[in-house]
Amino acid sequence: MTETDKKPRSALETRKAIAEGKLTAVAATEELLDRVAALEPDVEAWVHINTKGALDAAAQLDRSTDKAPLHGVAFGVKDLFAVKDLPWRCGSPIWKDRTASFDAPVIALLRQAGGIVLGKTETTEFAGYKPSRTRNPAAPGRTPGGSSSGSAAAVACGMVPLAFGTQTSGSIIRPASFCGVVGFKPSFDTLETSGIAPLSRSLDTVGLFARDVPDIAFAMEALTGTSLQPGDASTPPVPLGVFRSAAWPYAEPALVTAWESFEERLASLQGPVPSPLPDDFTAALDPVLDLHVRLMALEAAEALAHESAIAPELLSEGLAQQLADGRATSAGQRREDRQHLNRLRAMAFNSLAPDAVWLTPSSCGPAPAFEAGTGNPAFNRTWSLLGLPCCSVPILSDAEGRPMGVQVVGAMGNDQGVLAAAHWLMQAFA
Amino acid sequence: MTETDKKPRSALETRKAIAEGKLTAVAATEELLDRVAALEPDVEAWVHINTKGALDAAAQLDRSTDKAPLHGVAFGVKDLFAVKDLPWRCGSPIWKDRTASFDAPVIALLRQAGGIVLGKTETTEFAGYKPSRTRNPAAPGRTPGGSSSGSAAAVACGMVPLAFGTQTSGSIIRPASFCGVVGFKPSFDTLETSGIAPLSRSLDTVGLFARDVPDIAFAMEALTGTSLQPGDASTPPVPLGVFRSAAWPYAEPALVTAWESFEERLASLQGPVPSPLPDDFTAALDPVLDLHVRLMALEAAEALAHESAIAPELLSEGLAQQLADGRATSAGQRREDRQHLNRLRAMAFNSLAPDAVWLTPSSCGPAPAFEAGTGNPAFNRTWSLLGLPCCSVPILSDAEGRPMGVQVVGAMGNDQGVLAAAHWLMQAFA
Repeated sequence: MTETDKKPRSALETRKAIAEGKLTAVAATEELLDRVAALEPDVEAWVHINTKGALDAAAQLDRSTDKAPLHGVAFGVKDLFAVKDLPWRCGSPIWKDRTASFDAPVIALLRQAGGIVLGKTETTEFAGYKPSRTRNPAAPGRTPGGSSSGSAAAVACGMVPLAFGTQTSGSIIRPASFCGVVGFKPSFDTLETSGIAPLSRSLDTVGLFARDVPDIAFAMEALTGTSLQPGDASTPPVPLGVFRSAAWPYAEPALVTAWESFEERLASLQGPVPSPLPDDFTAALDPVLDLHVRLMALEAAEALAHESAIAPELLSEGLAQQLADGRATSAGQRREDRQHLNRLRAMAFNSLAPDAVWLTPSSCGPAPAFEAGTGNPAFNRTWSLLGLPCCSVPILSDAEGRPMGVQVVGAMGNDQGVLAAAHWLMQAFA
Repeated sequence: MTETDKKPRSALETRKAIAEGKLTAVAATEELLDRVAALEPDVEAWVHINTKGALDAAAQLDRSTDKAPLHGVAFGVKDLFAVKDLPWRCGSPIWKDRTASFDAPVIALLRQAGGIVLGKTETTEFAGYKPSRTRNPAAPGRTPGGSSSGSAAAVACGMVPLAFGTQTSGSIIRPASFCGVVGFKPSFDTLETSGIAPLSRSLDTVGLFARDVPDIAFAMEALTGTSLQPGDASTPPVPLGVFRSAAWPYAEPALVTAWESFEERLASLQGPVPSPLPDDFTAALDPVLDLHVRLMALEAAEALAHESAIAPELLSEGLAQQLADGRATSAGQRREDRQHLNRLRAMAFNSLAPDAVWLTPSSCGPAPAFEAGTGNPAFNRTWSLLGLPCCSVPILSDAEGRPMGVQVVGAMGNDQGVLAAAHWLMQAFA
């Protein structure tokens, strides 16, 4: 039996085996590197595999008596994050020769918690729409989604149990949906974004991919000191309502079919599906997809001002157009959009119960063809705009078995409720 | 008559003289470099004077026919900002040999607008409390305040018309008050913070120093595309109320005396001084000074995780203690504090009229003795926490003529109203 025939270990299994003395950090890392060697030629998830750095870190952990929470657990790191002495290219030819000279703070926290950087994963160009080369291991010939393409794909095929991503519109939840993994975007500002190439300062959020929810909770606790353990999963934390949202017109037939069955089964499991959101709140959300597009373009034009100055010819046409749109936004529109964002966030805080959790699709359907781009983030923009916690769980599929996610969204700060609902869904719909 | 006997040019005067062909960008830069040469030995405002880079940029501007808005206007840049090929030390021995390999986005935008980087200005250690060597040119023997010490001092003695600072608690408004210049902290997220060493992601805000309000509005418009021109200054934009705030117990006798006269004169100029803020709002602000301290420590511990890992022995004792306090914050307190912040910002948005503007002291008194540290930001914490726009105008002084500022604060997004009120105050109290 080769390494890739075995079920890959979860982060918690790895941690447990190491704690019980049945596995060393070096052996755990070698297992993953073997899987990478076997699978990477087909998946192309990695910009750089940190073989020596990961094994050295593992050996040092094996020698230490101090068992930090993530002791020996390996992570993939989206290539937007600075990791000392590793390439830092951001999916752009502008930075093709760049190596980071420092660790982004969240990477420093990861190392402090005993985590290991297995390598840098592919991203679309500056977390925008120009695809990376990464393939979708769960849906051959299809895009893995973006922008956190390599992180989602690497976790999906067991090359690593956990990986960092970032989301500005749908860059965690959408690839999680397409690749059939769990993706988690915590409440805005939960994890530090400095040392990570910016796209849109009001929206950029650091999050994680894993194959199950307890691994996400485990890693979040190690990184933030706040427990998000989802409990025993025998019941949802609150009755779960469904909100199809203003993005529903973008739902593809395969999603519509799967979603209708999902709603029926949800009702059969928990009883009547409540209407989860106040009417004034949902009415206010109707026009926000365009607001998200404008704010992102405006802030991206500022965030990428240095790159636009030194090498405008190396930006893709699509990104150059997005930045030009941002720069062309009128002064009145800028002011109005920013006030609109403040108003929406204040309203979300005031209108929603602190323990509110609801369900909506993670993506418009299964992964589109590889050549068609990274997919439409319509079902993600609103929650990114509001900064609310979201978790995609891979419990739907189309007729050909291609995965789609159910997106759990919660009120600001209710990250624990979101993970508890996600955990219950994974069990109940397994 | 030597260069330092002349009144230094404002940014707008520089721009006008260049536009009329009476001055070149090179000559304007040379005037400033002459002032720097004469004054710097006593003030020590600069980490690095960018003589060649500034003159080269000026010569290039003189050759170009395209007159960008800031054409030929020089800026000091706090040494937290990455400026390509210049030192990037952040006031810490950890980075004493570091040179930035890129421009922070806001610096790229500055150059694009025709602005010139005259040099890097001194900051306290990572924008915290450990003083830099900079002296206060407006109050001999006194601190210039911090953390944007060099930027405030350089503007105060006319070494440069404009300078960038950042504020997390009181790092723009307080040094502006102590040095007798105008300091402006725009609404949170108005200017991009990436490429600037972080301290506290929920609070860090980029702003400016100048010697008068129109220069601030001019630079902000060039950097953001949004006009903030304060108009003709013959009347305040709204009747200006006074709010002494929960920081009032920290007011020193010199401030109390100056403030009481100020309130009387304000009443004589504009009629009755209104009570500017709703009672529920001011009641909610009472306990927030501690919240600000905790959030800042918590986020600073994360933001400085890399530095803490590579060279903990090179952190000052005070900063190390602050980071240790941050790390020791319990999980429950973290969660509660973040929700409290969200609640306060939502309340500020809902309770305040969009055109609200009010007045409060900029600092607890005039600049303390140099040896006593950079002063107490008690009058600044609340507004930094809420992300509201603030402008300090240098219109008060103690019996020895040491400056103190009046702080104009406005509702979220009312940057224009704040500058209009600041401009009126500067004229009316001249």
